[in-house]
Amino acid sequence: MRDLPSLQALIQQLRHIPYVASKQVYRVALYLLTAPEERSVKLLDAITQARQAVTPCELCGNWAERAVRCTVCSDPKRDESLLCVVEQWPDLYAIERLGEYRGRYHVLGGVLSPLEGVGPDQLRIAGLVSRLAIEPVREVIFAINPTPEGEATMGYIRTKMPSSGIVFSRLASGMPTGSHLAYLDRTTIHRALAGRQLL
Amino acid sequence: MRDLPSLQALIQQLRHIPYVASKQVYRVALYLLTAPEERSVKLLDAITQARQAVTPCELCGNWAERAVRCTVCSDPKRDESLLCVVEQWPDLYAIERLGEYRGRYHVLGGVLSPLEGVGPDQLRIAGLVSRLAIEPVREVIFAINPTPEGEATMGYIRTKMPSSGIVFSRLASGMPTGSHLAYLDRTTIHRALAGRQLL
Repeated sequence: MRDLPSLQALIQQLRHIPYVASKQVYRVALYLLTAPEERSVKLLDAITQARQAVTPCELCGNWAERAVRCTVCSDPKRDESLLCVVEQWPDLYAIERLGEYRGRYHVLGGVLSPLEGVGPDQLRIAGLVSRLAIEPVREVIFAINPTPEGEATMGYIRTKMPSSGIVFSRLASGMPTGSHLAYLDRTTIHRALAGRQLL
Repeated sequence: MRDLPSLQALIQQLRHIPYVASKQVYRVALYLLTAPEERSVKLLDAITQARQAVTPCELCGNWAERAVRCTVCSDPKRDESLLCVVEQWPDLYAIERLGEYRGRYHVLGGVLSPLEGVGPDQLRIAGLVSRLAIEPVREVIFAINPTPEGEATMGYIRTKMPSSGIVFSRLASGMPTGSHLAYLDRTTIHRALAGRQLL
């Protein structure tokens, strides 16, 4: 692609975007090159606008738009005794879309990853500890993804938590809906078996 | 997400991008919101620059940068007697990366899709027909993806091709490397069996 330096530069920038897999990058670049001018302008504007308007909630780390606190933290109807700890906003949004959780959140901002330079100080762990000292939380639900880094993060945070008065829980591990045993990894099957539920 | 109109607008624009699956859209938005200012500027610049500098080759439809013809069509060392027909540039690039194909290309720009308003006039089919009348092509290789639309497009184009003097071929259908029979669809297995090769 040495003959197409602008396209190469675009693809280089796209490669920084997580979850745009290496082979999709070419198809995304094709869209960005060929989309109608109006749509391209709208995309560039939307990125710029969102970066200006959207900031983390000072309390929980959820996104807030032109506000210090997010709509969950500002909502007096949300249950202050339930606190759900997630890694990132997409995780929070996945739970929020269910429409059944009425507690509040705490967004860590990621997981511990020494190789990538993410230590406890890079996550909102101190903020979580101080919230538990002030807010009337009865249960902390860890909705951390069951990856090695997620497990390590959960284990580390648990040691920083107050030793009494609060219940700590985590999301159930097991078979996802629509899955087949034959296609699942050993760890998932192990957990589904160990965590089996009575009929 | 009604409380986050800018984020909602960004996600709406991202949804237009193909191959950014519905659940990845939230993680891509997270990157676009939180990337360092410098990287965000570089991405926006790269999109704008590439849209200005990169245009389709007038002959084959491959991308050319600040030129009327692409580097493949301008290269006198490429074999003019071989013409490979692909749907889109990412397909061409996938073959080009192999480094073993020495012929030239013709990029259709997509496949026939009446439901999406793509008829023969929206593709570079007339251009292909006129190239065959002028250029010393001996073999046309259809490297169209084996999807229902791809098959239909290949069938249609075949009827427009000159009836003698040129060999028409298509890429082999069969099991991809690293695949397992148990996970493959019926059509793939059927084709792998029908097209079996002698040892």
